[in-house]
Amino acid sequence: MPDRDALYFEDFHVGRRFVSRGVTLSEAEIIDFALKYDPQPFHIDKVAASKSPYGGLIASGFHTLSAAFRMAIQHNVFTACSMGSPGLDELRWLKPVYPGDTLYTEFEVAHAEPSKSRPDRGRVRMAYTVRNQDGEAVMTLTAMQIMKTRAAAETEADEDAAQ
Amino acid sequence: MPDRDALYFEDFHVGRRFVSRGVTLSEAEIIDFALKYDPQPFHIDKVAASKSPYGGLIASGFHTLSAAFRMAIQHNVFTACSMGSPGLDELRWLKPVYPGDTLYTEFEVAHAEPSKSRPDRGRVRMAYTVRNQDGEAVMTLTAMQIMKTRAAAETEADEDAAQ
Repeated sequence: MPDRDALYFEDFHVGRRFVSRGVTLSEAEIIDFALKYDPQPFHIDKVAASKSPYGGLIASGFHTLSAAFRMAIQHNVFTACSMGSPGLDELRWLKPVYPGDTLYTEFEVAHAEPSKSRPDRGRVRMAYTVRNQDGEAVMTLTAMQIMKTRAAAETEADEDAAQ
Repeated sequence: MPDRDALYFEDFHVGRRFVSRGVTLSEAEIIDFALKYDPQPFHIDKVAASKSPYGGLIASGFHTLSAAFRMAIQHNVFTACSMGSPGLDELRWLKPVYPGDTLYTEFEVAHAEPSKSRPDRGRVRMAYTVRNQDGEAVMTLTAMQIMKTRAAAETEADEDAAQ
Protein backbone atom coordinates (compact mmCIF):
# COMPACT_ATOMS: atom_id res chain seq x y z
CA MET A 1 0.00 0.00 0.00
CA PRO A 2 1.59 3.34 -0.94
CA ASP A 3 1.79 5.59 2.08
CA ARG A 4 -0.38 8.65 1.39
CA ASP A 5 1.95 10.88 3.41
CA ALA A 6 5.09 9.51 1.75
CA LEU A 7 6.91 11.38 -0.98
CA TYR A 8 7.38 9.97 -4.47
CA PHE A 9 9.15 11.24 -7.59
CA GLU A 10 6.19 13.47 -8.46
CA ASP A 11 6.65 15.40 -5.20
CA PHE A 12 10.21 16.55 -5.87
CA HIS A 13 9.60 19.92 -7.51
CA VAL A 14 12.65 22.01 -8.30
CA GLY A 15 13.27 24.35 -5.38
CA ARG A 16 11.55 22.17 -2.76
CA ARG A 17 13.76 22.28 0.31
CA PHE A 18 14.19 20.13 3.41
CA VAL A 19 16.21 20.61 6.61
CA SER A 20 17.10 17.65 8.83
CA ARG A 21 17.30 17.58 12.59
CA GLY A 22 20.77 17.86 14.08
CA VAL A 23 23.39 15.33 15.05
CA THR A 24 26.30 16.07 17.40
CA LEU A 25 29.60 14.39 16.60
CA SER A 26 31.32 13.46 19.85
CA GLU A 27 35.06 13.11 20.24
CA ALA A 28 34.64 9.38 20.93
CA GLU A 29 32.60 8.86 17.79
CA ILE A 30 35.03 10.88 15.66
CA ILE A 31 37.97 8.75 16.85
CA ASP A 32 35.98 5.52 16.54
CA PHE A 33 34.91 6.18 12.93
CA ALA A 34 38.39 7.33 11.92
CA LEU A 35 40.21 4.41 13.56
CA LYS A 36 38.16 2.13 11.33
CA TYR A 37 37.91 4.10 8.09
CA ASP A 38 40.25 7.09 8.03
CA PRO A 39 43.10 6.66 10.54
CA GLN A 40 45.01 9.84 9.75
CA PRO A 41 46.69 11.54 12.75
CA PHE A 42 44.44 14.63 12.72
CA HIS A 43 41.38 12.33 13.10
CA ILE A 44 42.61 9.92 15.80
CA ASP A 45 45.49 11.52 17.75
CA LYS A 46 44.77 14.63 19.84
CA VAL A 47 48.44 15.38 20.39
CA ALA A 48 49.32 15.21 16.70
CA ALA A 49 46.11 17.04 15.79
CA SER A 50 46.93 19.93 18.14
CA LYS A 51 50.15 20.48 16.14
CA SER A 52 48.38 20.21 12.76
CA PRO A 53 47.04 23.21 10.81
CA TYR A 54 43.56 22.31 12.22
CA GLY A 55 44.69 23.02 15.79
CA GLY A 56 42.90 19.94 17.14
CA LEU A 57 41.06 16.74 16.34
CA ILE A 58 38.63 16.99 13.40
CA ALA A 59 36.08 14.55 11.99
CA SER A 60 36.93 12.50 8.92
CA GLY A 61 35.21 13.95 5.86
CA PHE A 62 33.68 10.52 5.28
CA HIS A 63 32.22 10.64 8.79
CA THR A 64 30.70 14.07 8.12
CA LEU A 65 29.30 12.75 4.84
CA SER A 66 27.84 9.57 6.37
CA ALA A 67 26.34 11.35 9.40
CA ALA A 68 24.81 14.05 7.17
CA PHE A 69 23.12 11.46 4.96
CA ARG A 70 21.89 9.56 7.98
CA MET A 71 20.07 12.68 9.12
CA ALA A 72 18.65 13.24 5.61
CA ILE A 73 17.40 9.63 5.48
CA GLN A 74 15.95 9.92 8.98
CA HIS A 75 13.95 12.93 7.74
CA ASN A 76 11.73 10.37 5.92
CA VAL A 77 11.82 12.16 2.60
CA PHE A 78 13.27 9.12 0.81
CA THR A 79 11.65 6.35 2.85
CA ALA A 80 9.11 5.19 0.29
CA CYS A 81 10.67 6.31 -2.98
CA SER A 82 14.42 5.67 -2.75
CA MET A 83 15.78 3.30 -5.38
CA GLY A 84 19.42 4.14 -4.69
CA SER A 85 21.88 6.65 -6.06
CA PRO A 86 24.18 6.50 -9.08
CA GLY A 87 26.58 8.98 -7.54
CA LEU A 88 27.67 12.31 -6.09
CA ASP A 89 29.30 15.36 -7.62
CA GLU A 90 31.31 18.34 -6.47
CA LEU A 91 31.67 17.29 -2.86
CA ARG A 92 33.55 20.02 -0.97
CA TRP A 93 34.69 19.95 2.64
CA LEU A 94 34.63 23.68 3.40
CA LYS A 95 35.34 23.87 7.12
CA PRO A 96 36.65 21.40 9.71
CA VAL A 97 34.13 19.64 11.97
CA TYR A 98 35.34 19.58 15.59
CA PRO A 99 34.21 17.34 18.48
CA GLY A 100 30.94 18.66 19.88
CA ASP A 101 29.85 20.30 16.62
CA THR A 102 26.22 19.71 15.65
CA LEU A 103 25.40 19.19 11.99
CA TYR A 104 22.18 19.93 10.10
CA THR A 105 21.61 18.74 6.54
CA GLU A 106 19.79 21.03 4.12
CA PHE A 107 18.79 19.58 0.78
CA GLU A 108 16.97 21.11 -2.13
CA VAL A 109 15.71 19.74 -5.43
CA ALA A 110 17.95 21.16 -8.15
CA HIS A 111 16.66 19.12 -11.08
CA ALA A 112 14.07 16.39 -11.66
CA GLU A 113 13.28 14.39 -14.78
CA PRO A 114 11.27 11.25 -15.44
CA SER A 115 13.23 8.27 -16.73
CA LYS A 116 12.89 7.92 -20.51
CA SER A 117 13.27 4.13 -20.45
CA ARG A 118 11.68 3.14 -17.09
CA PRO A 119 8.26 4.70 -16.42
CA ASP A 120 8.31 3.56 -12.77
CA ARG A 121 11.01 6.04 -11.76
CA GLY A 122 12.61 9.44 -12.16
CA ARG A 123 15.99 10.99 -11.51
CA VAL A 124 16.35 13.83 -9.01
CA ARG A 125 19.45 15.93 -8.44
CA MET A 126 19.58 17.26 -4.90
CA ALA A 127 21.87 20.05 -3.70
CA TYR A 128 23.08 19.38 -0.15
CA THR A 129 24.52 21.86 2.32
CA VAL A 130 25.62 20.65 5.75
CA ARG A 131 25.83 23.42 8.35
CA ASN A 132 27.18 23.51 11.89
CA GLN A 133 25.52 25.06 14.95
CA ASP A 134 26.83 28.49 13.92
CA GLY A 135 25.18 28.22 10.50
CA GLU A 136 28.51 27.83 8.72
CA ALA A 137 28.51 25.53 5.69
CA VAL A 138 30.97 22.72 6.44
CA MET A 139 30.21 20.55 3.39
CA THR A 140 28.35 20.89 0.09
CA LEU A 141 27.66 18.40 -2.68
CA THR A 142 25.05 17.35 -5.19
CA ALA A 143 23.62 13.84 -5.33
CA MET A 144 21.68 12.06 -8.03
CA GLN A 145 18.88 9.96 -6.61
CA ILE A 146 16.53 7.53 -8.31
CA MET A 147 12.98 7.87 -7.02
CA LYS A 148 10.01 5.61 -7.54
CA THR A 149 6.87 7.27 -8.97
CA ARG A 150 3.61 7.24 -7.03
CA ALA A 151 1.99 5.50 -10.00
CA ALA A 152 4.52 2.63 -9.72
CA ALA A 153 3.96 2.37 -5.96
CA GLU A 154 0.19 2.11 -6.53
CA THR A 155 0.64 -0.59 -9.18
CA GLU A 156 2.88 -2.59 -6.81
CA ALA A 157 0.27 -2.26 -4.08
CA ASP A 158 -2.44 -3.59 -6.43
CA GLU A 159 -0.23 -6.54 -7.39
CA ASP A 160 0.48 -7.35 -3.74
CA ALA A 161 -3.24 -7.22 -2.97
CA ALA A 162 -4.03 -9.57 -5.86
CA GLN A 163 -1.59 -12.24 -4.65
CA MET B 1 62.81 13.80 10.59
CA PRO B 2 61.34 13.25 7.12
CA ASP B 3 61.05 9.54 6.41
CA ARG B 4 63.32 8.74 3.45
CA ASP B 5 60.94 6.05 2.23
CA ALA B 6 57.84 8.22 2.61
CA LEU B 7 56.20 9.92 -0.34
CA TYR B 8 55.84 13.70 -0.60
CA PHE B 9 54.26 16.00 -3.17
CA GLU B 10 57.31 15.73 -5.44
CA ASP B 11 56.76 11.95 -5.77
CA PHE B 12 53.26 12.17 -7.26
CA HIS B 13 54.05 12.15 -10.98
CA VAL B 14 51.09 12.04 -13.35
CA GLY B 15 50.40 8.41 -14.20
CA ARG B 16 51.95 6.94 -11.03
CA ARG B 17 49.61 4.20 -9.89
CA PHE B 18 48.98 2.36 -6.63
CA VAL B 19 46.83 -0.67 -5.76
CA SER B 20 45.75 -1.35 -2.18
CA ARG B 21 45.37 -4.69 -0.48
CA GLY B 22 41.85 -6.07 -0.27
CA VAL B 23 39.11 -5.77 2.33
CA THR B 24 36.12 -8.12 2.55
CA LEU B 25 32.81 -6.56 3.57
CA SER B 26 30.92 -9.03 5.72
CA GLU B 27 27.15 -9.11 6.03
CA ALA B 28 27.43 -8.14 9.71
CA GLU B 29 29.61 -5.15 8.91
CA ILE B 30 27.33 -4.03 6.06
CA ILE B 31 24.28 -4.07 8.34
CA ASP B 32 26.20 -2.47 11.21
CA PHE B 33 27.45 0.47 9.11
CA ALA B 34 24.06 0.99 7.48
CA LEU B 35 22.08 0.82 10.73
CA LYS B 36 24.17 3.74 11.90
CA TYR B 37 24.63 5.81 8.75
CA ASP B 38 22.37 4.65 5.90
CA PRO B 39 19.39 2.66 7.27
CA GLN B 40 17.61 2.03 3.97
CA PRO B 41 15.87 -1.35 3.66
CA PHE B 42 18.20 -2.74 0.98
CA HIS B 43 21.16 -2.15 3.35
CA ILE B 44 19.74 -3.50 6.64
CA ASP B 45 16.81 -5.86 5.91
CA LYS B 46 17.52 -9.12 4.07
CA VAL B 47 13.84 -9.84 3.45
CA ALA B 48 13.13 -6.41 1.95
CA ALA B 49 16.44 -6.49 0.06
CA SER B 50 15.58 -9.83 -1.56
CA LYS B 51 12.49 -8.18 -3.09
CA SER B 52 14.42 -5.07 -4.21
CA PRO B 53 15.95 -4.65 -7.69
CA TYR B 54 19.32 -5.63 -6.12
CA GLY B 55 18.04 -9.12 -5.23
CA GLY B 56 19.65 -9.07 -1.80
CA LEU B 57 21.45 -7.00 0.79
CA ILE B 58 24.02 -4.55 -0.58
CA ALA B 59 26.56 -2.30 1.12
CA SER B 60 25.80 1.39 1.60
CA GLY B 61 27.70 3.43 -0.96
CA PHE B 62 29.15 5.42 1.94
CA HIS B 63 30.45 2.18 3.42
CA THR B 64 32.11 1.23 0.12
CA LEU B 65 33.61 4.73 -0.05
CA SER B 66 34.89 4.68 3.54
CA ALA B 67 36.32 1.15 3.31
CA ALA B 68 38.01 1.93 -0.02
CA PHE B 69 39.74 5.00 1.43
CA ARG B 70 40.77 3.07 4.52
CA MET B 71 42.63 0.64 2.28
CA ALA B 72 44.22 3.51 0.32
CA ILE B 73 45.37 5.18 3.56
CA GLN B 74 46.67 1.85 4.89
CA HIS B 75 48.81 1.61 1.73
CA ASN B 76 51.03 4.28 3.34
CA VAL B 77 51.14 6.50 0.29
CA PHE B 78 49.71 9.47 2.18
CA THR B 79 51.17 8.80 5.63
CA ALA B 80 53.79 11.53 5.68
CA CYS B 81 52.42 14.04 3.18
CA SER B 82 48.63 14.22 3.68
CA MET B 83 47.33 17.66 4.62
CA GLY B 84 43.67 16.77 4.00
CA SER B 85 41.36 16.97 1.03
CA PRO B 86 39.19 19.82 -0.23
CA GLY B 87 36.78 17.41 -1.91
CA LEU B 88 35.72 14.69 -4.32
CA ASP B 89 34.25 14.80 -7.83
CA GLU B 90 32.28 12.52 -10.11
CA LEU B 91 31.72 9.74 -7.59
CA ARG B 92 29.83 6.91 -9.32
CA TRP B 93 28.52 3.72 -7.75
CA LEU B 94 28.66 1.42 -10.77
CA LYS B 95 27.78 -1.99 -9.34
CA PRO B 96 26.30 -3.21 -6.07
CA VAL B 97 28.66 -4.54 -3.37
CA TYR B 98 27.29 -7.73 -1.82
CA PRO B 99 28.21 -9.41 1.51
CA GLY B 100 31.44 -11.34 1.06
CA ASP B 101 32.73 -9.14 -1.77
CA THR B 102 36.38 -8.13 -1.49
CA LEU B 103 37.36 -4.63 -2.58
CA TYR B 104 40.67 -3.34 -3.92
CA THR B 105 41.39 0.36 -4.36
CA GLU B 106 43.38 1.48 -7.39
CA PHE B 107 44.48 5.10 -7.49
CA GLU B 108 46.47 6.99 -10.06
CA VAL B 109 47.85 10.52 -10.19
CA ALA B 110 45.78 12.43 -12.76
CA HIS B 111 47.13 15.92 -12.12
CA ALA B 112 49.68 17.54 -9.80
CA GLU B 113 50.55 21.20 -9.32
CA PRO B 114 52.50 23.11 -6.68
CA SER B 115 50.52 25.64 -4.66
CA LYS B 116 51.03 29.18 -5.96
CA SER B 117 50.53 30.79 -2.57
CA ARG B 118 51.93 28.16 -0.14
CA PRO B 119 55.35 26.78 -1.09
CA ASP B 120 55.13 24.00 1.52
CA ARG B 121 52.44 22.07 -0.40
CA GLY B 122 50.95 20.98 -3.72
CA ARG B 123 47.60 19.83 -4.95
CA VAL B 124 47.21 16.35 -6.45
CA ARG B 125 44.13 15.01 -8.24
CA MET B 126 43.89 11.24 -7.90
CA ALA B 127 41.62 9.03 -10.00
CA TYR B 128 40.23 6.16 -7.91
CA THR B 129 38.74 2.88 -9.14
CA VAL B 130 37.46 0.34 -6.61
CA ARG B 131 37.21 -3.19 -7.97
CA ASN B 132 35.71 -6.37 -6.56
CA GLN B 133 37.28 -9.84 -6.56
CA ASP B 134 36.12 -10.37 -10.17
CA GLY B 135 37.92 -7.22 -11.34
CA GLU B 136 34.65 -5.36 -11.90
CA ALA B 137 34.73 -1.63 -11.15
CA VAL B 138 32.16 -1.01 -8.41
CA MET B 139 32.99 2.65 -7.76
CA THR B 140 35.00 5.43 -9.41
CA LEU B 141 35.74 8.99 -8.34
CA THR B 142 38.43 11.62 -8.36
CA ALA B 143 39.77 13.25 -5.20
CA MET B 144 41.78 16.39 -4.68
CA GLN B 145 44.45 15.95 -2.04
CA ILE B 146 46.80 18.48 -0.49
CA MET B 147 50.31 17.06 -0.07
CA LYS B 148 53.24 18.43 1.86
CA THR B 149 56.49 18.91 -0.10
CA ARG B 150 59.66 17.08 0.90
CA ALA B 151 61.36 20.46 1.26
CA ALA B 152 58.76 21.53 3.84
CA ALA B 153 59.15 18.25 5.73
CA GLU B 154 62.92 18.76 5.87
CA THR B 155 62.55 22.32 7.13
CA GLU B 156 60.17 21.13 9.86
CA ALA B 157 62.67 18.46 10.85
CA ASP B 158 65.45 21.07 11.11
CA GLU B 159 63.23 23.29 13.28
CA ASP B 160 62.38 20.37 15.55
CA ALA B 161 66.07 19.53 15.90
CA ALA B 162 66.93 23.15 16.79
CA GLN B 163 64.41 23.31 19.65
